[in-house]
Amino acid sequence: MAERLKYGQVGGDLKALIGECHRKALGMEPRAELVCGCFSAIDELNDECAEAYHVDPSRVYYDTEEMAKAEEGKIDFVAICTPNFVHYSAAKVFLEHGINVMCEKPLTLTIEEAEDLQRIAKEKDLVFAVDYCYSGYVMPKVMKQMIARGDIGDIISVNADYMEGCFLPLLSETEQVNSRIWRTDPKYSGVSNTCADDGTHVEHLVNYVTGLKVKRLLATSDTFGKKLDLNDNIILEYDNGAHGAYWFSQVLCGSPNEINLRIYGTKGALEWHQTKPDELLFSQAGKATQVLYRSGDGIDVPAAGLARMPLGHPEGYYLSIANVYRSFVSTILKRKAGETPTEEDLDFPTVDDGVSGVKFFHAVVESAKNDSKWVELD
Amino acid sequence: MAERLKYGQVGGDLKALIGECHRKALGMEPRAELVCGCFSAIDELNDECAEAYHVDPSRVYYDTEEMAKAEEGKIDFVAICTPNFVHYSAAKVFLEHGINVMCEKPLTLTIEEAEDLQRIAKEKDLVFAVDYCYSGYVMPKVMKQMIARGDIGDIISVNADYMEGCFLPLLSETEQVNSRIWRTDPKYSGVSNTCADDGTHVEHLVNYVTGLKVKRLLATSDTFGKKLDLNDNIILEYDNGAHGAYWFSQVLCGSPNEINLRIYGTKGALEWHQTKPDELLFSQAGKATQVLYRSGDGIDVPAAGLARMPLGHPEGYYLSIANVYRSFVSTILKRKAGETPTEEDLDFPTVDDGVSGVKFFHAVVESAKNDSKWVELD
Amino acid sequence: MAERLKYGQVGGDLKALIGECHRKALGMEPRAELVCGCFSAIDELNDECAEAYHVDPSRVYYDTEEMAKAEEGKIDFVAICTPNFVHYSAAKVFLEHGINVMCEKPLTLTIEEAEDLQRIAKEKDLVFAVDYCYSGYVMPKVMKQMIARGDIGDIISVNADYMEGCFLPLLSETEQVNSRIWRTDPKYSGVSNTCADDGTHVEHLVNYVTGLKVKRLLATSDTFGKKLDLNDNIILEYDNGAHGAYWFSQVLCGSPNEINLRIYGTKGALEWHQTKPDELLFSQAGKATQVLYRSGDGIDVPAAGLARMPLGHPEGYYLSIANVYRSFVSTILKRKAGETPTEEDLDFPTVDDGVSGVKFFHAVVESAKNDSKWVELD
Amino acid sequence: MAERLKYGQVGGDLKALIGECHRKALGMEPRAELVCGCFSAIDELNDECAEAYHVDPSRVYYDTEEMAKAEEGKIDFVAICTPNFVHYSAAKVFLEHGINVMCEKPLTLTIEEAEDLQRIAKEKDLVFAVDYCYSGYVMPKVMKQMIARGDIGDIISVNADYMEGCFLPLLSETEQVNSRIWRTDPKYSGVSNTCADDGTHVEHLVNYVTGLKVKRLLATSDTFGKKLDLNDNIILEYDNGAHGAYWFSQVLCGSPNEINLRIYGTKGALEWHQTKPDELLFSQAGKATQVLYRSGDGIDVPAAGLARMPLGHPEGYYLSIANVYRSFVSTILKRKAGETPTEEDLDFPTVDDGVSGVKFFHAVVESAKNDSKWVELD
Repeated sequence: MAERLKYGQVGGDLKALIGECHRKALGMEPRAELVCGCFSAIDELNDECAEAYHVDPSRVYYDTEEMAKAEEGKIDFVAICTPNFVHYSAAKVFLEHGINVMCEKPLTLTIEEAEDLQRIAKEKDLVFAVDYCYSGYVMPKVMKQMIARGDIGDIISVNADYMEGCFLPLLSETEQVNSRIWRTDPKYSGVSNTCADDGTHVEHLVNYVTGLKVKRLLATSDTFGKKLDLNDNIILEYDNGAHGAYWFSQVLCGSPNEINLRIYGTKGALEWHQTKPDELLFSQAGKATQVLYRSGDGIDVPAAGLARMPLGHPEGYYLSIANVYRSFVSTILKRKAGETPTEEDLDFPTVDDGVSGVKFFHAVVESAKNDSKWVELD
Repeated sequence: MAERLKYGQVGGDLKALIGECHRKALGMEPRAELVCGCFSAIDELNDECAEAYHVDPSRVYYDTEEMAKAEEGKIDFVAICTPNFVHYSAAKVFLEHGINVMCEKPLTLTIEEAEDLQRIAKEKDLVFAVDYCYSGYVMPKVMKQMIARGDIGDIISVNADYMEGCFLPLLSETEQVNSRIWRTDPKYSGVSNTCADDGTHVEHLVNYVTGLKVKRLLATSDTFGKKLDLNDNIILEYDNGAHGAYWFSQVLCGSPNEINLRIYGTKGALEWHQTKPDELLFSQAGKATQVLYRSGDGIDVPAAGLARMPLGHPEGYYLSIANVYRSFVSTILKRKAGETPTEEDLDFPTVDDGVSGVKFFHAVVESAKNDSKWVELD
Repeated sequence: MAERLKYGQVGGDLKALIGECHRKALGMEPRAELVCGCFSAIDELNDECAEAYHVDPSRVYYDTEEMAKAEEGKIDFVAICTPNFVHYSAAKVFLEHGINVMCEKPLTLTIEEAEDLQRIAKEKDLVFAVDYCYSGYVMPKVMKQMIARGDIGDIISVNADYMEGCFLPLLSETEQVNSRIWRTDPKYSGVSNTCADDGTHVEHLVNYVTGLKVKRLLATSDTFGKKLDLNDNIILEYDNGAHGAYWFSQVLCGSPNEINLRIYGTKGALEWHQTKPDELLFSQAGKATQVLYRSGDGIDVPAAGLARMPLGHPEGYYLSIANVYRSFVSTILKRKAGETPTEEDLDFPTVDDGVSGVKFFHAVVESAKNDSKWVELD
Repeated sequence: MAERLKYGQVGGDLKALIGECHRKALGMEPRAELVCGCFSAIDELNDECAEAYHVDPSRVYYDTEEMAKAEEGKIDFVAICTPNFVHYSAAKVFLEHGINVMCEKPLTLTIEEAEDLQRIAKEKDLVFAVDYCYSGYVMPKVMKQMIARGDIGDIISVNADYMEGCFLPLLSETEQVNSRIWRTDPKYSGVSNTCADDGTHVEHLVNYVTGLKVKRLLATSDTFGKKLDLNDNIILEYDNGAHGAYWFSQVLCGSPNEINLRIYGTKGALEWHQTKPDELLFSQAGKATQVLYRSGDGIDVPAAGLARMPLGHPEGYYLSIANVYRSFVSTILKRKAGETPTEEDLDFPTVDDGVSGVKFFHAVVESAKNDSKWVELD
């Protein structure tokens, strides 16, 4: 019988969007099994989730530290799906008990916390993934490989948006509404809301797909009288000298959680929209634009093989996370078996990407506060 | 601990598209657990699949009848994912051992076989679902409820396509290629290829969404020198007197497995495209066309509540099947608990829909053979 | 100074959609000048239009026959933009006075009338164009040339729609409304409404683009209790044995006057939508679908040269008519100069195409009346 | 007989894109007639154009000043379609001879020149229009009126692009190519290429549609080793405190001259794409997004009446210019008749808008040169 990893989950009760996503994604992964959890700080929600997922009551925990201690040596990894401000402490305790970690983004609220996790993971030689799930879709992987082999030449301009409208109602509220506090009150969310929560996805995605590093950036942030940023405009300079522009907003009426990615090079261009994740527009100088469908004709990079279904069968959001887990699980299995993970196994965002994201949103906040002056990133 | 259904699978080894889809769909369903199977007629593939999914070797079978017998009383349902010509015998034996059935479409090769399964399921009072998965997407359910309450008035015209290109290479082959035999050789596939395999999806979907029954139809079928239909054009008359047109084809270059559904009424219209399953265009007389996004604003029918994620998070194909299973599993659980399933629990395609599909493709074949004369459906 | 053709117009006062379109199209044609007209049967509307377009009052006519007689030898062509039932008598009288004709479609109400015009035009050796304007767009010309040189191989399936909603309000009226009488009362519109008015555009367009002739067809027509067809479904067999399906409707809520054209061959496919006339989807077996933009890269047929603007500058509906006129005017100028018109000059729909359209809608009506039996076309 | 304005044209021979556009646009305007011109600095091209458009040889000029002098009192307006660096001198001389002016954009190369024209036009009380044609399309006018009456509330974020690829080949050239010199060599084009030529369209369009004024902006400009900007990223602060981002580029592979305009308010949003000028996406808080088609249902502002054709008949680029002329001509006619032009008559971009554009691109250049510091606009 094939080896099956055991995992626990922290946070993410039945009502929590992202916790459920992790369970669904791993539900499609026969090589991993949910065996324990601390799904909510509210006991009832914790128990409810455990029962729905058939977790043995003896392995349902009401305290993260207790769970880490009790499960040391018994689980192969933990999935951390808590509110952002809990990521650091939760991830840290599992690392300290020698347990591999999959953590939601943004990694932490502060750069110090992020670097601390990075340091511990390295010291303990543990696998630490951060769920920047959008790079888990097949088509960004196709883009990455096409760009890497030179299909669009040298990159000369990047434009990317993360657009949604979830906080538009906030603008007409006179008081902060409780349920949103962990996102928009600095006490819980740290220095940034929109840029930390959505913008880091874009920061990672562009870096993943293009290989470009941000050298410096400048930004404006709009709070509309609330405590944290809800609409950010950013201009970036990459390490190759090219410029890009990002727009992150959570107050855009009618916008269905769009990520729009447009990348232009000296020889071609690629355009991808997260709401149609299976399509990719590919232009080459002197040729007609091509519509690349996942699993369709005209894709000749290895990432094409990562598709799970024939074209015309939409893969969807859960699979973006499932793909991150596919590599993560493969890597842990290989390490357990004493084998060396392949490049494909290692194709998931790591704690280093998490650190990069935390630095990114801090730079955005710093520039916005400093009348949009350039802020260097290391 | 919540009740968890046990199920087995027949057919659908690791390489089989649809068998894997069922496992992924049920992987997202914590209320059901795969415990046994006969995944392939080829022993190696059978074992490989069983091991990957951690099925106990003692419950891996090499014969369907043996499995049905051994698992009688032990499993709650079986998922039949074999080639089409095996559906009948496999479904029959499980029914006879008192086991509920989820069967792939088309239900059977002949009307007699289909009606036989219908009869047995009724006699035995078993739950029998047919996986017309496209009606499992949320937006067709939204359409159904909008139409039922009169949002578009009386239906006056229907237009629907199922377009793909998988068999285009066949046109330039001089000999039948082996791997496709079960789809295109009448010995294995029965009287129809394209209409049976793809067309029945559309027949079901239109019926599901509109409530209309086909009164009569006429058709042309193109075989392009091969043994079975590869391109079908059909005109239909529904029981309310309206006409519709369907086009099913598997030789369309570049087509990414599209289902396009356009339904027009006296007061409005609805348009849906399977490759963008989360969107729906809704027109009302005298008003601008609305773009309804799954989980987005402007949807006020109960089916909106069936969405699993916020808008902008594409749900994808696996979830269409998972949604069929959600209702199917709920129904079985309620029956086991002595409760009455709700309308929502019963919202999955049944053996009656399966029979209807088999009659449909037989009518198409009959008309096409008879110089496109009208053929009545009962 | 370059030769400038003089022309007159019959029908098409300032309020008339199509008459205005002709004047705008010819306004963009410096080689032709409006010098006379009989713009309306209502004197006031006639005078109003003449004044707006600076037509000399001495050349404004209140009777078509009088105009033809007076302008014989003075104008090079006449543009006939009257209601359909006047086309025949108006065209005939100008032909008889030796004047070239541009006539709106459908050419006439009956086959006899159409063939009479065809005969006279031939006898008098006059240029007779019919304004099937959609084939005037650049992209259908590109399609025609791509198909002619074999880019998509042999055609195996055609699907085309003409969809609009202008008559949907009619369905809820108890009495026929006056203003629409000439379209929907057989006394004025002949045997067909929707198929004659919209369907003939599609019949011409498919023939123009593919070169295929309709061998036979069968149809249903829906009148919804009114006097003429408002929704037609048609299956066709072409002279190469392939089948196609057309759908013409004027009762489709929300539809913005769409013509959708999808043509599939053994080696490729082309898809065009009239509401986005500058785009064309081109698929080839084994390659990604290409988006061809008018004036964009990747179009290497001569028709590309017919574009008037760089890509991204939408050419629009007036230019489709202006393009028909461009060839028509070139042909007349060449003939006047004793030169032989080129193939490009002759690239406009003729009286032969007009006759073909009239036969087409008669065949549709005949099949629909005869329980959808096949009707042969010669 | 209705009054008909006489006009002359400067620049814009038969090969020149924009000069031809003006003639086509005015070809659709029966209230104006081309009577004289100086179409090119190259005599042959000048004569060729004059002949094609039947301009009397006695009114064909080989010098702008000579033309202005000779035509004083004989023409009602002049259309200036020369390369940008000639706009100033040409416009000035016609103004000085008391002739109304329609001038291409950008108005001039320097702010001083622009303000000089503004001053003279005011002193002479002449009508001076600038052809920012994109605000001539119907849908931006619809947007303007919807926003003005509060349909989307207070504007909180703006995002706009002007994307094309015409200069991408320049990046791989080692020497400046002659034919492009007047666009990319500062000697002829002034301080800016892309921002002056394309960006000013966006600057005007956003201002026109929203009523917002730019308070300050910061920018990066990329020259890629050439002499002028080819790719500009800009962040703006408007007078209401909101921020926006613009992206102008002429080196984007595959981009078909897109202008994408996305405007978000506290109560709704509007999205428009120039390549599909007849469509507009309209979102309102709590409702589904609506697709507004020009001439379609759901548009209830007066600008809807400016459409020339029913929906589904694409209006295209020439009509955007024709619409600018429609108002411009109406205004001149009213003034000649001693009447007061209406608001609709005056709905065309003026010399004030032209001045604003020149200031805008100077601010962009200044910021880009000054390490992206904020630059205030008055």
